[in-house]
Amino acid sequence: MSCLDRVIACAGFEPSQFRAFRISGVLVGHVTADFSKRLRRHDSVFVVDDNHVDLHSSFTDAEARTVAVAKVLQALRADGLVPGWRDEPYPVAEAFNAPALLTIERAAVPLFGVRGYGVHINGYVRRAGEYHMWIARRSLKKPTGPGKLDQMVAGGQPAGLALRDNLIKECGEEAGIPPALAAQAKSVGTVSYVVDRPDGLRRDVLFNFDLELPEDFEPKNVDGEVEEFYLWPIAEVMTLLCNSDDFKFNSGLVLIDFLVRHGYIDSEHPDYVEIVAGLHA
Amino acid sequence: MSCLDRVIACAGFEPSQFRAFRISGVLVGHVTADFSKRLRRHDSVFVVDDNHVDLHSSFTDAEARTVAVAKVLQALRADGLVPGWRDEPYPVAEAFNAPALLTIERAAVPLFGVRGYGVHINGYVRRAGEYHMWIARRSLKKPTGPGKLDQMVAGGQPAGLALRDNLIKECGEEAGIPPALAAQAKSVGTVSYVVDRPDGLRRDVLFNFDLELPEDFEPKNVDGEVEEFYLWPIAEVMTLLCNSDDFKFNSGLVLIDFLVRHGYIDSEHPDYVEIVAGLHA
Repeated sequence: MSCLDRVIACAGFEPSQFRAFRISGVLVGHVTADFSKRLRRHDSVFVVDDNHVDLHSSFTDAEARTVAVAKVLQALRADGLVPGWRDEPYPVAEAFNAPALLTIERAAVPLFGVRGYGVHINGYVRRAGEYHMWIARRSLKKPTGPGKLDQMVAGGQPAGLALRDNLIKECGEEAGIPPALAAQAKSVGTVSYVVDRPDGLRRDVLFNFDLELPEDFEPKNVDGEVEEFYLWPIAEVMTLLCNSDDFKFNSGLVLIDFLVRHGYIDSEHPDYVEIVAGLHA
Repeated sequence: MSCLDRVIACAGFEPSQFRAFRISGVLVGHVTADFSKRLRRHDSVFVVDDNHVDLHSSFTDAEARTVAVAKVLQALRADGLVPGWRDEPYPVAEAFNAPALLTIERAAVPLFGVRGYGVHINGYVRRAGEYHMWIARRSLKKPTGPGKLDQMVAGGQPAGLALRDNLIKECGEEAGIPPALAAQAKSVGTVSYVVDRPDGLRRDVLFNFDLELPEDFEPKNVDGEVEEFYLWPIAEVMTLLCNSDDFKFNSGLVLIDFLVRHGYIDSEHPDYVEIVAGLHA
């Protein structure tokens, strides 16, 4: 997959095939026709028509909505319709810093096509001026992208935790990075994408960070989510990215963003304009 | 203007108010209803209906189109309808690296709402770890944004010149930067915007570069396009950016992109997601 193929693969959303998911009239997600039919059976919680899935107006605050939707999700889970259940609460809101209108189990985020958020940390080392990157191979037991290559540290952004606190937590759990070192991670932008994946609609914004590591630092996985870490010269990472399907789809975008910002994919690249635009769907 | 206000100000395009400008069926721009009426008078060159402005199908190659459109533009110019004439040829194409379908005078680019391209170079100095930026005040004689603050070097991307060659040329003309130093500029991404400005529809992609300069380097304008250069600590640049209207609208976006990539506008900013998204309209 070329870099352009990768960004195109992350822009495969056809709005006409989805129903708008709204809470109090605010658009917060997109639901497939099939899934909306399932929700129609729970008509005390969801009001479904041919174009919309609305949360019932009898629920007027986030807590009431969360309790009601959780019951529906447990029923759907019992029917095997919420694969990869994580017991991780995810806020549903109009914008990242807007108050949550509802909180749902993270595994249901793609089913409702609500915006997901994550933190991804590019770990790199400079050796005689040449960049080397720490790349993680995801555990074979992960529900999404098992065995795929990933950033050194990457995690979803759960409700009720500040971004920086989540970053420090994930750095510790995934790569054994001490908090003082993790705190040096530099905020460098976002990538976003809207893509219809087998697990549902992924409509995510990833917060990207760069963390330059000491040459002698070696990441050590603590939580079992990483199979192995590799330290590769940037040229090797690029070759693998552009000539294989080894990277997890969204981690590939974060890596492309790193390569653009650091001048490795530069303005002379024939698809440069389209690649950079594709990082911000 | 806050940073969010700035990106919102660069996203003010209402497609329904424009006619699609097409060449051989390929969408290449957007024309106002008023301007399309003017073009209708030149019906051997433009075919105008209520929704489209098509280049006449009798022109089958770029050269023939360019000659025919140039005659129309000269007539419009004589009527005072192409302000800021520059004698600078601009390619009109389906994508940045696609072959030109037509070449037009740069001042007419916003009138046809065709995609414009530019190179912007962030010149900065590190002093004891603290960033300082070289900021240019545009000449009072410039047709667009006279007297506004701008990147150290910024210029349109003309036809027939490679990006890097244009960068080196602009660095020499605008800031007296020797080619060997200009060549160190690092490609770091793009910003893009679509905005209905007084001079027409600006639908541009800017190629951004970072150039770290020696502490003792001082830019010197050669071509009369810069009134003055300032070297300001980054905190001062940020204050001015977010609390004044002194920056040229698109240069403000390039500066915001720099501040995001270098962690000065970081993930804790309340409008972070919306600001970064707004850099890529």
